Amino acid sequence: MFTQQLASFKGDQSCIRVVGHRGARGIMPENTLLGFEWTMKMGVSALEFDVMITKDHVPVIVHNHHLNGAITRTAEGQWLNTPEPRISELTYDELAQYDVGGLNVFTEYGQRFPEQIFMHRQQVPKLADLLALAMQPDFAHVGLMLEIKSDPKVDNFQMHREETVAAVADVVRQAAMTSRTILHSFDWELLHLCQQAAPEMPTSFLSQLPAHDDDKGEDSSLVFSQNLKQLPSIPKAIAEAGGYIWAPHFKDVTLADVQEARNLGLLVAPWTVNDPKDMGQMIQLGVDAIVTDYPARLQRELIKNELRWQRQDDISNATLTSA
Amino acid sequence: MFTQQLASFKGDQSCIRVVGHRGARGIMPENTLLGFEWTMKMGVSALEFDVMITKDHVPVIVHNHHLNGAITRTAEGQWLNTPEPRISELTYDELAQYDVGGLNVFTEYGQRFPEQIFMHRQQVPKLADLLALAMQPDFAHVGLMLEIKSDPKVDNFQMHREETVAAVADVVRQAAMTSRTILHSFDWELLHLCQQAAPEMPTSFLSQLPAHDDDKGEDSSLVFSQNLKQLPSIPKAIAEAGGYIWAPHFKDVTLADVQEARNLGLLVAPWTVNDPKDMGQMIQLGVDAIVTDYPARLQRELIKNELRWQRQDDISNATLTSA
Repeated sequence: MFTQQLASFKGDQSCIRVVGHRGARGIMPENTLLGFEWTMKMGVSALEFDVMITKDHVPVIVHNHHLNGAITRTAEGQWLNTPEPRISELTYDELAQYDVGGLNVFTEYGQRFPEQIFMHRQQVPKLADLLALAMQPDFAHVGLMLEIKSDPKVDNFQMHREETVAAVADVVRQAAMTSRTILHSFDWELLHLCQQAAPEMPTSFLSQLPAHDDDKGEDSSLVFSQNLKQLPSIPKAIAEAGGYIWAPHFKDVTLADVQEARNLGLLVAPWTVNDPKDMGQMIQLGVDAIVTDYPARLQRELIKNELRWQRQDDISNATLTSA
Repeated sequence: MFTQQLASFKGDQSCIRVVGHRGARGIMPENTLLGFEWTMKMGVSALEFDVMITKDHVPVIVHNHHLNGAITRTAEGQWLNTPEPRISELTYDELAQYDVGGLNVFTEYGQRFPEQIFMHRQQVPKLADLLALAMQPDFAHVGLMLEIKSDPKVDNFQMHREETVAAVADVVRQAAMTSRTILHSFDWELLHLCQQAAPEMPTSFLSQLPAHDDDKGEDSSLVFSQNLKQLPSIPKAIAEAGGYIWAPHFKDVTLADVQEARNLGLLVAPWTVNDPKDMGQMIQLGVDAIVTDYPARLQRELIKNELRWQRQDDISNATLTSA
């Protein structure tokens, strides 16, 4: 099942996949079309990105439920003041006025990515815009790890979940990209909805144990992970829930976990691994794919370990032959 | 004189220009079309790059006089063995067989740029290819700092210099890009030839005092700088030689030097400044432009100092309005 969608995330003895986090947040403005384009051109195996819907139900690519003041300017070029508008309360046309092309270097979040280029006039993209870009023949090898964000603070949470899943499935189908898309979430109940509403796409289950703090300046995902530590086995719970990928916080995963997941037929794709030392550790565990803000650093660690990010059997264009 | 060519290199009280070194060597493979394209898209003010001629007199963009084994693979994907072929002994078609898209991470040179992406099938570009790319309307703001490399080891050195200057001037004229190009060299005698053979382009004088070692894995430029320390004033010598830009090694320049150069009507563009602390020091000196492998780092230091890389009076497209 789902051979085609999973191919970009599946490693083997000589290959670990590189998944660009929000494009390549370490280098390019996160979740922007220019960032995605660059990351795909660089030959990465897959993109990870965050999707939610606007007030008028347009699926858009943005991480936090409110616009993040550390990366958002008004049309007049001013950094956003608090209270930051919520995505679910803006129409797409209103949202498209904002510029998310640069980091405010005076914020804590802005200081986390000292190599990120500063751009102007980059809009929050529609999901449909990224799909159109990824459809280009040069990018046919790139898998799409589409994270659906769930917002428990929204009115009619359950209805909003259903509407979100329906809107996302609709856009991916219209683009004829279901064969390249994985539906990915911290919200396991939402993934159950995905399996029902869009059974032609595999699901990927995110997990984060409470011991590991959230990153600065981000919406927390822990609200969806509260009960995970009570599970006897996270991989087993995912397999039972019909998942195909386990995407754990990289500090939560051991060699025994990877082996258990593999025995259950799951792929393992830890996130977000930015330090070369941590990358080395994930490589030693033999995971399938590594989600990172810094694809070049991961390429380098793979080369040092005599590994590649493309498989021998990949049907790939000229720029993508193995290292 | 030369207002148009110099505009991209001229700072003012609120602006210091960002010059991408060999494209943006810290992030992208050096002196490649993909690297240049990315750097221009990022909104940098100017590109610096290295030009010499092949055996069949085609101006090409490459730094060392021999192919650098740390960045060069054969068509079969093998790292180049010594002795590395000399550019002047290869035809363009022979040169175009090599792949310069990635660093060999096991070499000293390869270890200097841990953030550089690893690409496949990137050829040494012709100068004409870069000019065609830079001609696109989106990149109309980008100045070209065209460094001509001089090779004292070549047979008939003086004739080879003249042939190089003639071939370069020819290609820039054919592309109608003389109004955006600065001719730049460590070899001041060659710059004199440029002034005679191509008087429609301004010259930029590189300097490096012997106290500062060459970078690892690079051809030395000190051969052309041996007598500099005997000069009473480098800026004065450049002004007398008809130069418009002084491009010193960043460790060689003081506040008094910058003031002297400015009084003489020269622009000051130190190279290659990659550490944010050194960038801060150059910003304090009030130089016009800074040449760097890491444009994003420099943008960040400029923003921290409430400076921009675009001037108020720039006629610029939407992506280039000031920060």
